[in-house]
Amino acid sequence: MISFDDAQKTVLSKKLETTPTQIPLLESIGNFYSADISADRNYPPFNRAAVDGIAFYWDGISPVKESYQIAGSIFAGEMWQKDIQAFECVWIMTGAPVPKQLNMLVRVEDISAQNNHIYFRKGLTFTRMQNIAKEGEDILKDTVVLTKGMRITPQHVSTLASLGYGFVPSYGFLTATILRTGNEITEPSTDVLAAWQIRDSNSFTIRSLLKDYPVTINMRSAQDTMEALVTQIEAGKHSNILILTGGVSAGAADLVPEALLACGFTCHFHKVEIRPGKPIWFGTHPTGCIAFGLPGNPFSVQIGVKVFVEPFIRACFNNRDKTFIHKILTHERLKKISFDEFIVADENIHGVCVKKHNGSGDISASLSSTGMIRHQAQKEKLEAGDTVDYYPWMINW
Amino acid sequence: MISFDDAQKTVLSKKLETTPTQIPLLESIGNFYSADISADRNYPPFNRAAVDGIAFYWDGISPVKESYQIAGSIFAGEMWQKDIQAFECVWIMTGAPVPKQLNMLVRVEDISAQNNHIYFRKGLTFTRMQNIAKEGEDILKDTVVLTKGMRITPQHVSTLASLGYGFVPSYGFLTATILRTGNEITEPSTDVLAAWQIRDSNSFTIRSLLKDYPVTINMRSAQDTMEALVTQIEAGKHSNILILTGGVSAGAADLVPEALLACGFTCHFHKVEIRPGKPIWFGTHPTGCIAFGLPGNPFSVQIGVKVFVEPFIRACFNNRDKTFIHKILTHERLKKISFDEFIVADENIHGVCVKKHNGSGDISASLSSTGMIRHQAQKEKLEAGDTVDYYPWMINW
Repeated sequence: MISFDDAQKTVLSKKLETTPTQIPLLESIGNFYSADISADRNYPPFNRAAVDGIAFYWDGISPVKESYQIAGSIFAGEMWQKDIQAFECVWIMTGAPVPKQLNMLVRVEDISAQNNHIYFRKGLTFTRMQNIAKEGEDILKDTVVLTKGMRITPQHVSTLASLGYGFVPSYGFLTATILRTGNEITEPSTDVLAAWQIRDSNSFTIRSLLKDYPVTINMRSAQDTMEALVTQIEAGKHSNILILTGGVSAGAADLVPEALLACGFTCHFHKVEIRPGKPIWFGTHPTGCIAFGLPGNPFSVQIGVKVFVEPFIRACFNNRDKTFIHKILTHERLKKISFDEFIVADENIHGVCVKKHNGSGDISASLSSTGMIRHQAQKEKLEAGDTVDYYPWMINW
Repeated sequence: MISFDDAQKTVLSKKLETTPTQIPLLESIGNFYSADISADRNYPPFNRAAVDGIAFYWDGISPVKESYQIAGSIFAGEMWQKDIQAFECVWIMTGAPVPKQLNMLVRVEDISAQNNHIYFRKGLTFTRMQNIAKEGEDILKDTVVLTKGMRITPQHVSTLASLGYGFVPSYGFLTATILRTGNEITEPSTDVLAAWQIRDSNSFTIRSLLKDYPVTINMRSAQDTMEALVTQIEAGKHSNILILTGGVSAGAADLVPEALLACGFTCHFHKVEIRPGKPIWFGTHPTGCIAFGLPGNPFSVQIGVKVFVEPFIRACFNNRDKTFIHKILTHERLKKISFDEFIVADENIHGVCVKKHNGSGDISASLSSTGMIRHQAQKEKLEAGDTVDYYPWMINW
């Protein structure tokens, strides 16, 4: 038996090498930056008109002239090439570059035009650089805006496009095999079930929790016999990561630990001081394959992925982000056992509160909750208002 | 000019017909249920052993016997077929069906076995149905667990698999064309830019905000000429939805409204009382195509998608979920104009707070914020502690 913190450390210490590559922008979402992302030039790249209007020069001291002569117009996508005299102005459209020698932009709503001259609305006040987005005020050239190891999120896509990252420095995919075990398990598409059969949900839970990670996932299944398990583990160990569900406890049908050892895996821990999820098994193979043996209960599978598999995958891509966030607990909670406990919980506007359910075997527990909280081993009581680690079920980038 | 609420109502009233279909479970994520999802049987489907141990019958009144004779064992995936006498018990493994005539399950840790008999650990207390997950306690047969119009989320996948939904009743995809306009716009992959050029980010913003929606997206681009716009709109109007960016304001190069009318679209509104994003144009074509003309500023595009395009798409699939959630504002805020304002904001453990940025043209504004809040037109002042509508940038299922 190993503590939760030690188990996490052990898992992270076995992180795999990954290979930097370039992936097309929209396909890179969910991957991780293999290099810093920086600005190739100033943003805006020029003094940019923030409104439609007329631009001219003002020294900021003498009164602004009553009228300016229109020297021409500038559209977005054009650069003004000519000189501009002190008595002249130019029409300029939103998004167009304001000529460097001009420092004033007055909105079209505040002027009138007549005989190639403009006149200002009465009572206007003027500020230099008004309505002009200054070159570099958004991002300066060479500024690092996103760093190696961060996850590539949908939120980044727009900035990456602006900065010219049609391809994003990220990583080649890892491979994983999910091996579900259990004589009672059938495919979800099975319409007619024997009374003792249940449909596989765990492998789908894992695939949905790992959705968008740069991991290619294969599926295998085995009956509860040494022969079936060894055959499937031998095939699955060609993946980088092998995730087994079920058969990992101490019952007479729990052959997974023995089968993994028979296939040449070394056990780094079996059983962790957490509830539920205690029987979790973790080991490595000399060929480099990493094996997670998760218990077969739906909630235990979710815990195993959230606290071990996800952090492990992130570590392989040099990402140290947590898979939890901090939330305020809205009620007190007494500890039931000396282990780290994970409890299904519901997010609300003030924080999170624990949800009642029947046990880790429930299939509806995750539907009727938004995530889970951790009640740490050493805390006998959590108070209302305490900050807790909250693991949302939904993608947590 | 139209109020924000009226503009939203107008958009939603034009929702398109969609076609129910069946989509494989993992591919259905992001789509919407076209039928209610219900349980095909009780869950658990039998009284299920929650631990490894021995099962026997107890009337709940007379003392539990000192010892029981082992009649056999039951593994997950097996159904006990024989009789069991009052002095007998069975070994049973976690997940296996407890025979109907038995109502007690004692953990393997609490017993010892000798000569085909089991004996209890001293001082044990007994409760009927202990360690047994009762048939139907999780979900009763025919219970509706997810309803038509809800969005299919990663969180549902596990339950859908358990209930036998290898294929999910959902909808065929809508088609959308994004038409970016502007002489200054180039592809993100353009390495060498003229000083006046900027790379396209808006179409990528839209595609990342609509990621996982059941919408197939095509890309087109047009220069700021009537001829180019009309050609591209004519091609794009074969999609269900046409989303234009740029060229929709009142400047001399803003030809989009005129081009849409020339192509046979009817304008339902142009200009909405919101800031930023005021120039938004919305119309429909007799062939059924719906057109959104969004301003070219990055922040205005995000607003247009979050408050109009996303709610519209959801409505087409009979989903009336909001694209915002409620959060507590952590500071007061005074209103600047009589319009509805959208302001970039940051989520924190206590709620949200407004973020400072240079304006709606900034490309870094969305990177350094987690979403935006709405300051309603009629509220002169928001107080610290007020509940506000918060639109997260990240997927909001």
